[in-house]
Amino acid sequence: MQDELWCLSVSFFFSTLSNTSLPLTCFILEIIIIILFGVLVQYDKETDAKKWHLEKKSENKSDYENDFYYRYPSFQDVHVMIFIGFGFLMTFLQRYGFGSVAFNFLISAFALQWATLMQGFLHGLHDGKIDIGVESMINADFCTGSVLISFGAVLGKTSPVQLLFMALFEVTLFAVNEFILLSVLDAKDAGGSMTIHTFGAYFGLMVARVLYRPNLDKSKQRNCSVYHSDMFAMIGTLYLWMFWPSFNSAITAHGDDQHRTAMNTYYSLAACTLSTFAMSSLTAHDGKLDMVHIQNAALAGGVAAGTAGEMMLTPVGSMIVGFLAGIISVLGFKYLTPILEEKLKIQDTCGVHNLHGMPGVLGAIVGAVTASLASREVYGDGLEDVFPEIAKGHLSASTQGFRQAISLGVTLGIALLGGIVVGFILKLPVCGAPSDAICFEDNIYWEVSLMQKRQ
Amino acid sequence: MQDELWCLSVSFFFSTLSNTSLPLTCFILEIIIIILFGVLVQYDKETDAKKWHLEKKSENKSDYENDFYYRYPSFQDVHVMIFIGFGFLMTFLQRYGFGSVAFNFLISAFALQWATLMQGFLHGLHDGKIDIGVESMINADFCTGSVLISFGAVLGKTSPVQLLFMALFEVTLFAVNEFILLSVLDAKDAGGSMTIHTFGAYFGLMVARVLYRPNLDKSKQRNCSVYHSDMFAMIGTLYLWMFWPSFNSAITAHGDDQHRTAMNTYYSLAACTLSTFAMSSLTAHDGKLDMVHIQNAALAGGVAAGTAGEMMLTPVGSMIVGFLAGIISVLGFKYLTPILEEKLKIQDTCGVHNLHGMPGVLGAIVGAVTASLASREVYGDGLEDVFPEIAKGHLSASTQGFRQAISLGVTLGIALLGGIVVGFILKLPVCGAPSDAICFEDNIYWEVSLMQKRQ
Amino acid sequence: MQDELWCLSVSFFFSTLSNTSLPLTCFILEIIIIILFGVLVQYDKETDAKKWHLEKKSENKSDYENDFYYRYPSFQDVHVMIFIGFGFLMTFLQRYGFGSVAFNFLISAFALQWATLMQGFLHGLHDGKIDIGVESMINADFCTGSVLISFGAVLGKTSPVQLLFMALFEVTLFAVNEFILLSVLDAKDAGGSMTIHTFGAYFGLMVARVLYRPNLDKSKQRNCSVYHSDMFAMIGTLYLWMFWPSFNSAITAHGDDQHRTAMNTYYSLAACTLSTFAMSSLTAHDGKLDMVHIQNAALAGGVAAGTAGEMMLTPVGSMIVGFLAGIISVLGFKYLTPILEEKLKIQDTCGVHNLHGMPGVLGAIVGAVTASLASREVYGDGLEDVFPEIAKGHLSASTQGFRQAISLGVTLGIALLGGIVVGFILKLPVCGAPSDAICFEDNIYWEVSLMQKRQ
Repeated sequence: MQDELWCLSVSFFFSTLSNTSLPLTCFILEIIIIILFGVLVQYDKETDAKKWHLEKKSENKSDYENDFYYRYPSFQDVHVMIFIGFGFLMTFLQRYGFGSVAFNFLISAFALQWATLMQGFLHGLHDGKIDIGVESMINADFCTGSVLISFGAVLGKTSPVQLLFMALFEVTLFAVNEFILLSVLDAKDAGGSMTIHTFGAYFGLMVARVLYRPNLDKSKQRNCSVYHSDMFAMIGTLYLWMFWPSFNSAITAHGDDQHRTAMNTYYSLAACTLSTFAMSSLTAHDGKLDMVHIQNAALAGGVAAGTAGEMMLTPVGSMIVGFLAGIISVLGFKYLTPILEEKLKIQDTCGVHNLHGMPGVLGAIVGAVTASLASREVYGDGLEDVFPEIAKGHLSASTQGFRQAISLGVTLGIALLGGIVVGFILKLPVCGAPSDAICFEDNIYWEVSLMQKRQ
Repeated sequence: MQDELWCLSVSFFFSTLSNTSLPLTCFILEIIIIILFGVLVQYDKETDAKKWHLEKKSENKSDYENDFYYRYPSFQDVHVMIFIGFGFLMTFLQRYGFGSVAFNFLISAFALQWATLMQGFLHGLHDGKIDIGVESMINADFCTGSVLISFGAVLGKTSPVQLLFMALFEVTLFAVNEFILLSVLDAKDAGGSMTIHTFGAYFGLMVARVLYRPNLDKSKQRNCSVYHSDMFAMIGTLYLWMFWPSFNSAITAHGDDQHRTAMNTYYSLAACTLSTFAMSSLTAHDGKLDMVHIQNAALAGGVAAGTAGEMMLTPVGSMIVGFLAGIISVLGFKYLTPILEEKLKIQDTCGVHNLHGMPGVLGAIVGAVTASLASREVYGDGLEDVFPEIAKGHLSASTQGFRQAISLGVTLGIALLGGIVVGFILKLPVCGAPSDAICFEDNIYWEVSLMQKRQ
Repeated sequence: MQDELWCLSVSFFFSTLSNTSLPLTCFILEIIIIILFGVLVQYDKETDAKKWHLEKKSENKSDYENDFYYRYPSFQDVHVMIFIGFGFLMTFLQRYGFGSVAFNFLISAFALQWATLMQGFLHGLHDGKIDIGVESMINADFCTGSVLISFGAVLGKTSPVQLLFMALFEVTLFAVNEFILLSVLDAKDAGGSMTIHTFGAYFGLMVARVLYRPNLDKSKQRNCSVYHSDMFAMIGTLYLWMFWPSFNSAITAHGDDQHRTAMNTYYSLAACTLSTFAMSSLTAHDGKLDMVHIQNAALAGGVAAGTAGEMMLTPVGSMIVGFLAGIISVLGFKYLTPILEEKLKIQDTCGVHNLHGMPGVLGAIVGAVTASLASREVYGDGLEDVFPEIAKGHLSASTQGFRQAISLGVTLGIALLGGIVVGFILKLPVCGAPSDAICFEDNIYWEVSLMQKRQ
């Protein structure tokens, strides 16, 4: 009798723990963030009423010169990519639409706050305070993008608590990697081919490797799309595609830099779309197109233009990069993903290796080559904006190119190692994890009405 | 025989009337608007070719200083919130998708024209003419937002003619309330916690009260969502969430004000999202999340930052406000909505009391407190922009705070009384109304093909 | 035996050709584009690092005066209209969602590259090079819009190879027509009532005429919508509606011109929406609304304001234009489309004649009349921006109006003739075409899983 009571108590305790682990995690994380914001974060001189008016007076500026007007439209485009773009891209699964779009929402809302703190620690401390404004908002969204890429690799196989913990550690490592690349190595990576895409993809792949599920085929019947879920996913695809020019140009220098970056990305994506359609049909046995390729590979041109987009890549150069990215990406989906799963035991739900991994590496290489060809001949006085270290004579173009290449190596190293460590953390029982038989299923985390189940 | 003919004639007359009441209402309203625009409305000095070029010459301005460039991007974000945000947020009902998104479209297109006239009468008459430009377009969209909030309370239970009449009267009362708050009481409410959200919510709740349907459970089986309709609703949610920073900052002063307002709202929403997920899971008996909460309560942070967003609320202050708003809102959905329905006979289809009502009141209170703490210490010369009356010495900070509090009371009073009166007007038979058994059903207003019905 | 082998070889060759015609077409077109870009295209002085910095120095400009900041937000709105707006508007068909949104994606990505070249040849050659920047990106998207209008007429009845060839020729003819109108006739058409809408519609209708399918009723059961496909289509409608003000104002002169154009379009659309709802209900036998009208006719106000939008049309003038456009458009859907199909053998899948054809002609006429009334009285010094030829005294207002009318005739002539010729080209067997029994069906071009088919 006492034994039974004991059993009941224990089971009650664990079921309570499991039912309250998400609320607890959310509350604790948010309260920590609020405390740290209270202690550390303040308005920068463009958002603080007093400081801005002092700045206006001392530098004879007009309100129209506030950076808000030159960054905020780009920020909003990036914001749409994070919440609608990534969120809906992942809704292709037939029974994981809620999880895709709403866990994307949750971890993004968390990651952008945490990123403000982590990036602030490393880049933006002034007198012990983190100054924030629209540029830090863009950077926080960028860092969030990296977490969402990793989310794509583990989609449908992780609990929201696992995802929050993954975001917590990944944001931190992202900030460290970004600091090494941009501040120590003086590398250029405005659109984040390395810092965002390569990092997010390989980090996520390692997490997926550690969380390998040998019996995942028990959930196989739900690991695919239905007609309408593919339509929802196209909303995500198109928003990512359309706004990628804004993404890559969001934090480049003002003037020609932002303008050129946006245009390079636009042409890279256009060329990528044609090679994607071609390869999708060519690699099918009956010439039919595959929505998975269209939804994903057509975006690889944006990833691959992430580093060199702000450089004088030329329109034709951008097109060639995009063209190749589309080809590589479709080939990856077709031939590499099955190998990754069977041989390397990496179950990559969304194929992030094909959309972010390989195109990210391609982008890093293109960036290194383009940087090593930089000259005052080509850039004129614009060299200051794109390669300040070369302009000042601190570095030669070839050294800059070499540093870009090193940066790729550093990124891969931190991502791979970090992903393994974080993967093991996520295996801790406290994080919870769905069993192999109920992966890719909304019903375990969401109230889905009977009517909905019958559908 | 004659009797039968008489019956037939009468029934034909009424069926014709009922079939033509929507076209007649639309035509008459639009023709009245066109006549009033013809008589009263003209381009302002930023949109009129002659006036703008005179202004440029006399004030030595450049075309780049036209307000278009500093307001239009915000306007477009607000516009998306009105038509996609509100429109899709309400598509969660399984058989009322057409009505949600398309009646939202109809009443918005009407309300923004009527609002231009009503707000123009009260705020913008110059020599008997209403001058219009991008700022009046934003204000008209804001007023429309208020009508859409009320629409949420009566969704699925009203005919399009009723909705047009509701919009007609609500816009008029909105303009009066706004005039009293902003021009008589000198209150600040840039993002409309009071003027838009509190007003729209309590007005709509009163209309819903007057239109109470004791037998609504006959339509109960359609008053819920299906899987795909919840996905469509998430499109609305995310656009509202992403663009709320633009909404709150759309008509604040240029420079630091717009910048700060957008950032405060961004952090308020991020914190709100985490508390919403936490509370949704915590209040469920099995720890599962409820899409209704995610779709709605996660937005309460934007509502609650509507008044104080432009003030020096600080990032951490914004987060605390958003955090509390999410908690209040979920609790409202869980515990208050059933009470409202059972005890107060208010059938609030979308739960606008939880998303707009209580968070609006919270926002008003936060605004009053923050205003009463304003000082030149904190705002520097920026005090002129945020609190011109305090800066000029016409009001003390505490008086400003007091006037903010009075404004909340005035808003509640006009909304509650106005809602009751308008509710009774909508009960007139000429407005038409669906019977209790066919609420939440597109089929009565829309051609739905057989194939669609079978679906 | 040898005969059989021969047969097999031939059938293998043809099936290979048919399976590889899409990849081959994509690859060849993209490679041609890349070569031409390599030879001909370069950054303009706002996107080239060296040229911009020289310009800044010589003209004492700031980076904030780069045209990026005054055109790119409009560009992004136009971009959304092209990819989401047109793409989703066409997803109303129950079994052609993939084809609608993804072929829209493919031909747009191709057309915008080809348009850059064709428009560059005719408008932008400097020393044998085509200079590109944000304005050429907008113009390329505009030209793409015209192709998508024609796509609407042949939707569901053409192979992707046919669509790519149609785009190839249509873009070329578009550029010729645009050159004649804007550079030879000095006509004004900022929002493209003539160049984009009238041209695209009548071109597409002629193509549809030549491709007439007498046995199309074999696919009749798929040539209609289902509930969810109508919801997806509303996404397209609303984005087109919301961003049309940006579309019409995207390339007008800076300052009052952009501001006024956006506002005129906004009011034209609002009035159009009310007349559309009224007419949709009025023309139904039971007063019910038809989603086809709401999805399409409510946009006619944007089309009809395409030419006169930048002129001093006045707000009330814009409303009257929009009001009429909505009425004409619904009447067209209701009474003209069946006649076109039965008598003229034009099968217009999306009814582009009602949304783009007639409202485009209306817009051209309104533009001609408004231009003929232009005077320095009304425009002041702004006359230079809107009608430079009148301001310089080269043309009288009535001559300008006459030239606008001539432009409509030229556009109709080139569109009708061009459409016929291109229609016959698309009939070549090499282009492929679905048979009458499998029109409006994704399954022939797309991998649709068994699960998806069962749905």
